[in-house]
Amino acid sequence: MTAYKDMTKEELSGVKEELERQFQEVKAKGLKLDMSRGKPSTEQLDLSMGMMDVLTSKSDLKCTEGVDCRNYGVLDGIGEAKQLLADMMEVPKDNIVIYGNSSLNVMYDTVARSMTHGVMGSTPWSKLDKVKFLCPVPGYDRHFAITEFFGIEMINVPMTPEGPDMDMVEKLVSEDESIKGIWCVPKYSNPQGITYSDETVYRFANLKPAAKDFRIYWDNAYTIHHLYDDKQDYLLEILMECKKAGNPDMVYKFSSTSKITFPGSGIAAIAASEGNLVDIKRQLTIQTIGHDKLNQLRHARYFKNISGMVNHMKKQAEILRPKFDTVLETLDRELGGLEIGSWMAPRGGYFISFDAMDGCAKAIVAKAKEAGLVMTGAGATFPYGKDPHDSNIRIAPSYPTLEDLKVACEIFVLSVKLVSAQKLLGEL
Amino acid sequence: MTAYKDMTKEELSGVKEELERQFQEVKAKGLKLDMSRGKPSTEQLDLSMGMMDVLTSKSDLKCTEGVDCRNYGVLDGIGEAKQLLADMMEVPKDNIVIYGNSSLNVMYDTVARSMTHGVMGSTPWSKLDKVKFLCPVPGYDRHFAITEFFGIEMINVPMTPEGPDMDMVEKLVSEDESIKGIWCVPKYSNPQGITYSDETVYRFANLKPAAKDFRIYWDNAYTIHHLYDDKQDYLLEILMECKKAGNPDMVYKFSSTSKITFPGSGIAAIAASEGNLVDIKRQLTIQTIGHDKLNQLRHARYFKNISGMVNHMKKQAEILRPKFDTVLETLDRELGGLEIGSWMAPRGGYFISFDAMDGCAKAIVAKAKEAGLVMTGAGATFPYGKDPHDSNIRIAPSYPTLEDLKVACEIFVLSVKLVSAQKLLGEL
Repeated sequence: MTAYKDMTKEELSGVKEELERQFQEVKAKGLKLDMSRGKPSTEQLDLSMGMMDVLTSKSDLKCTEGVDCRNYGVLDGIGEAKQLLADMMEVPKDNIVIYGNSSLNVMYDTVARSMTHGVMGSTPWSKLDKVKFLCPVPGYDRHFAITEFFGIEMINVPMTPEGPDMDMVEKLVSEDESIKGIWCVPKYSNPQGITYSDETVYRFANLKPAAKDFRIYWDNAYTIHHLYDDKQDYLLEILMECKKAGNPDMVYKFSSTSKITFPGSGIAAIAASEGNLVDIKRQLTIQTIGHDKLNQLRHARYFKNISGMVNHMKKQAEILRPKFDTVLETLDRELGGLEIGSWMAPRGGYFISFDAMDGCAKAIVAKAKEAGLVMTGAGATFPYGKDPHDSNIRIAPSYPTLEDLKVACEIFVLSVKLVSAQKLLGEL
Repeated sequence: MTAYKDMTKEELSGVKEELERQFQEVKAKGLKLDMSRGKPSTEQLDLSMGMMDVLTSKSDLKCTEGVDCRNYGVLDGIGEAKQLLADMMEVPKDNIVIYGNSSLNVMYDTVARSMTHGVMGSTPWSKLDKVKFLCPVPGYDRHFAITEFFGIEMINVPMTPEGPDMDMVEKLVSEDESIKGIWCVPKYSNPQGITYSDETVYRFANLKPAAKDFRIYWDNAYTIHHLYDDKQDYLLEILMECKKAGNPDMVYKFSSTSKITFPGSGIAAIAASEGNLVDIKRQLTIQTIGHDKLNQLRHARYFKNISGMVNHMKKQAEILRPKFDTVLETLDRELGGLEIGSWMAPRGGYFISFDAMDGCAKAIVAKAKEAGLVMTGAGATFPYGKDPHDSNIRIAPSYPTLEDLKVACEIFVLSVKLVSAQKLLGEL
């Protein structure tokens, strides 16, 4: 393979002409394909259908505490659901509060509470002139949307293969009291699939923030979402590391079963220190009488325990693995050696991150759309939707069928090649 | 019956002595009874057990829009759930957003959003020196808890048999720009069971608030929660009245199925004007990817339509009616003519409100507790827990069995009589 940049103008123009012919051919098919969101496929959802039969009118609907799950009561979650999610989140049961179906909503509530009531007695953020969050980039658009919604200034921190640039994090956090948080997806990160190294986690736990109400927003969305049996990432448990470092209150950990059972009808949880939980429950007791305990019971009885959940995730992996393999194979085969983009092979999670040549991402996504393939909007992986290099594109292979995915990948690499050729020819 | 106040000191002392003997007798039984919360009984919950069998692994889990309810998507509720709750709330389907299991949470979110983002473009309340709410009293403790949590000053407005004192509401709202809301339970009110008269609703709809971001918080929690087939209250529909009055944006209407199906696992909704819904959805889209659609589908398919729901509520009434009758009969029989308390007979809802002689409520609740009967804390029906007359006590007859309830009522009236006698004898 000759790299595009090493081709003569004539060679590249010839390549481009052929690519355009191929593109028109695909476009003429009038396809409708979607690789935009980390949405489980129907096949994956079918794996959890047994959950629909766990609770029936004949079931005993009392939880281990003896409470009737149909009625009011039990603010922070029933015992068996707490145990299950505690094991999933690798924290003691007493550090858990179970919420409704959406961990995003828990994160939103956490920021909203800090705005109106501060954090463990600190000044409410809405009373401050300036509040800032660090945002490892590329990252998760919905995180950035929350902080933007509350007018919180976002500062990009580059990701490395080990996690966020910790030199930068340590420096900023220790110098600037207006920095109140950092968004992290520490395992199989969205979108790169990176798992923070032990050193990164250690350095997080040992941060010396200027702001007493600085918190790490640790969104462990993909904690048991491996793709392989034999190649799995391990992540140091942050609550314990913070405790050891004498910073027990510095982290909120979020997770949910959205990508384990049903995305629309899972259960979510927060894990935090006792001090934080007092703060959280002071709000929770005003906010609701309690979350849906029947759905908690349904989840707990369906999986029985963490081992049941881990086995379930192996079935999910069997469906997802060939899809990730398809994307990676296509990228390798079609783009390898062309030096017009780079990517990593994740061992879990929901995404593959693609970095195009600078200034090409928007055009590639637009090009793909022209041929009927919807990708995550270019820029979405950055705060304010602004990728300074216009380079990063998130690929979400989970939702399409394997067949559709193969076609989608062909459209994608075709779009990458075409746009890159145009760029190098000065036509973009 | 001789009224206590017309008895001689000697007569009353004799009465008191006999009451004390009776009280010690009951106390010796070591009972544990609870009339404190508006919690449906097990028998009531059993009415909805069919709902546990509506969705199984064999069910088609697509909603009318063709969306797979197991997956992400559909921010504001599935069509069939919107239709059902729209009919229940007597508003067009397009004016509805479906939430999770708790209408309290929807109300909390509504106040929280106003604090951080204002209302349809107004200044966020957290940026104002002073925000006030009107609170018809007696009222619902959890409403008052929300406004207290956000540091909103609460102003008592007395209830009349027609609803809140509208002269006072009109005057305050039109004069004071810092008044941003009023908490209302307009039908079978908590705790008095009063339904606002047509004139009251009309005057609400025609308010001329000084604050553009003033909203009526219309918590229609008991909209179809009648106790009788032949005696039912009717409430003018507030959204339409506000629209007719040229104030379409002035009201948020809340409701849920908590006291229709399962309190812990129902579905909640807000109804509002298009303008308000734009504001609400701007937040919602940041806050969550969507609420639990399977539970929405479960509710919609179980009831089929509003007629199914209304029939279901007749069964609820059959269980609740004898309980309300028991309380009212006991109050009539034991306290009638003594002039030591007053009460009303509601036609629906969950509560009976009892007004003791001034300065007696706390002592009565404490007395009842001494004999093993837990009542709602005296004062709970007022902002900040402060009943200026120490007079109002909320009776919640739903949860105990009929048998237990009879005993509970005897303890209650005994406590009322004993404390009243002490009061009149100057011993309190």
